Amino acid sequence: MPLQLINYLANTTPKSAVNSQGPCAVLSVNMTAMARVSLKEVYRFVKDCMIAVGSPAKAADQVADLLVDADKLGHRSHGLNRLERYVVDIKAGRCAPNNEMKIEKETASTAWINANNVLGATSANYASDLAIKKAEETGIGWICTRASNHYGIGGYWAKKIASRGMIGMSFSNGSPLVAPTRSTKAALGSNPIAVCAPALSSTGPFYLDIATATVALGKLEMYRRRGKPLEPGWAAGPDGNETLDADLAIKSGSLLPLGGTEKSSGYKGFGLSALVDMLSGVLSGAQYAHHVPRWSPHETRPADLGHSFAALDHKCFAPGFEERVSDCISYWRQMTPSDPKYPVLAPGDLEKKSYAEADATGVIVYIVAMLESYDVLANELKVEPIERIKIMS
Amino acid sequence: MPLQLINYLANTTPKSAVNSQGPCAVLSVNMTAMARVSLKEVYRFVKDCMIAVGSPAKAADQVADLLVDADKLGHRSHGLNRLERYVVDIKAGRCAPNNEMKIEKETASTAWINANNVLGATSANYASDLAIKKAEETGIGWICTRASNHYGIGGYWAKKIASRGMIGMSFSNGSPLVAPTRSTKAALGSNPIAVCAPALSSTGPFYLDIATATVALGKLEMYRRRGKPLEPGWAAGPDGNETLDADLAIKSGSLLPLGGTEKSSGYKGFGLSALVDMLSGVLSGAQYAHHVPRWSPHETRPADLGHSFAALDHKCFAPGFEERVSDCISYWRQMTPSDPKYPVLAPGDLEKKSYAEADATGVIVYIVAMLESYDVLANELKVEPIERIKIMS
Repeated sequence: MPLQLINYLANTTPKSAVNSQGPCAVLSVNMTAMARVSLKEVYRFVKDCMIAVGSPAKAADQVADLLVDADKLGHRSHGLNRLERYVVDIKAGRCAPNNEMKIEKETASTAWINANNVLGATSANYASDLAIKKAEETGIGWICTRASNHYGIGGYWAKKIASRGMIGMSFSNGSPLVAPTRSTKAALGSNPIAVCAPALSSTGPFYLDIATATVALGKLEMYRRRGKPLEPGWAAGPDGNETLDADLAIKSGSLLPLGGTEKSSGYKGFGLSALVDMLSGVLSGAQYAHHVPRWSPHETRPADLGHSFAALDHKCFAPGFEERVSDCISYWRQMTPSDPKYPVLAPGDLEKKSYAEADATGVIVYIVAMLESYDVLANELKVEPIERIKIMS
Repeated sequence: MPLQLINYLANTTPKSAVNSQGPCAVLSVNMTAMARVSLKEVYRFVKDCMIAVGSPAKAADQVADLLVDADKLGHRSHGLNRLERYVVDIKAGRCAPNNEMKIEKETASTAWINANNVLGATSANYASDLAIKKAEETGIGWICTRASNHYGIGGYWAKKIASRGMIGMSFSNGSPLVAPTRSTKAALGSNPIAVCAPALSSTGPFYLDIATATVALGKLEMYRRRGKPLEPGWAAGPDGNETLDADLAIKSGSLLPLGGTEKSSGYKGFGLSALVDMLSGVLSGAQYAHHVPRWSPHETRPADLGHSFAALDHKCFAPGFEERVSDCISYWRQMTPSDPKYPVLAPGDLEKKSYAEADATGVIVYIVAMLESYDVLANELKVEPIERIKIMS
């Protein structure tokens, strides 16, 4: 199993520092040999692999759509790159894609779901659909899920709900990576906050999908490989103090929360990371905060993650919501920038640009080395390897 | 009218840099003459002033409770310090405390309220009560209010909902103070996120009340008076670039969003500030984002602010919620600190300490100069001035 491929994406260059999932999430393609693959082929390969390890076809489709969408949005660490982890988890018995989910409690506007260790994509599709259904009936649906697995980018679920005309929100906890302010070790995940609000087609929706750490771990790995010092506010060493030493930071495994150190209000990011866990792991009765196991091939326990999904129907409030959202987005985009080379962006603008480009070309460009790792996986799983359109160098 | 008093609190010293409303929110008392006032007397004075300017008794009680609570929590800028603004707004006709609120739309779990320019405390009490009532019936209540006024600390409303056994959330927009990443001027308020989750009495609740700017404007004023350079990540000059020059930053009126500059992920704080406006001003049809008028005695338009209040009943999800929240709080508190002199704090710990001290002594200590300004106000409004327990110097 080509475990090393999971870090390939940390080896690429940011196209821009502004992105709602952090500076390293939108990647350029200039550091190594690249190859183009059609969106359809990525989808086919993900689906085939998931089926080969025993997923039902519907679950395999859901995972394929989730990963292709992440790649289209430019969040390449959460796209095809993630497939191997899902395959490993299923093969190791940490995830059971054929289990049955169960609604443990239900009210007019809420449900508590036991995902029973199915794929994150399966439980999140079910829960977000249920949130929409309840919001259609009562104005809001809030669904909380335990015993789930990693659900990909949070923005996918918020966007899915928004595509049905609702304000979509999604929260998930994850393995400890963020050190509470003043502490010497990580005790919370980089727990994402994802919200998508429908707007006019002229601007597209308000789209926010952010981790509550300042930057992702992959960003530290990228700097280490280049021998570059980290930026202030990114990470802490084993003594809990901010460090610019990428090697030390990776050894300590402590990202600083959004805001960085105490002086620059990092305790707010700590509070936000904690808040997300309150609404996902703690609320659902899943593993939570410092109890969440590491997401590692050496970990045998199920992830038992918690998620929450909310659908809020803006039509229950003031008319003209979509127009006002678009007014904000338009206003931000036309603001005078500090540097004319870098126009002001609304949250989600980089994702929208990436998505439109992928739709226009029908293609995603991948690092050849990653595709070659997947050739090994294809051989192991007896599925067709990924067909490249053309090799670039 | 002693308008200058509104900035007195920016002239004091932070007791600690960690506080969920920012480093300047918990204040010590060592820079000028101070006087002790009983909690009851503060309450009495606020209530008398509000009645003197025409508030109904119930609204006056609500404002008094809100301001005393903020002072007890240590958020002194939002305590007695705020009274004058409320008095000014009513006298100027910007706020109409005797108006009738109206429910414009209602579903099983939501309501859209026209606050009709009553006091923020009045509309927020009404809306948070309604959120609780709906959550008791359907598991969640989400109430959104337009045409409201400043509602004090967001945490008061989250805490109020949590005191009824629900997870309480509160969001409000405000006047532009935060510059979107890359831009050269403020276009969003420092819009607070406030969440309170019930827990065991052994730890008290999870309490988070944070502005989505890195620091409050008052903190910049404090540094300017001392001639100190600002810290990185706090504010921008008129060119949109980060500045450490307090004078320049105050002139530009541009706080940096949580996260600071683009390099340290300030666009996440921008996104969060925007998110809060989506859920308050934009959703309610109030003034929103760049349209919100300044909160100034020279402004004649009503504030027309938007708020949202959510009550989420954790009993609709996994049993043992309060135990798990307390487990997190206990865990964070016992973590090894980077510096033994500064123990790790759970979100809200400083507020709890301040609150307990106020309850134990029954007293709040104020800057004498502020109390003297209120003596002038008392004379104008023909109410009894604030009785001091003892003057300290």
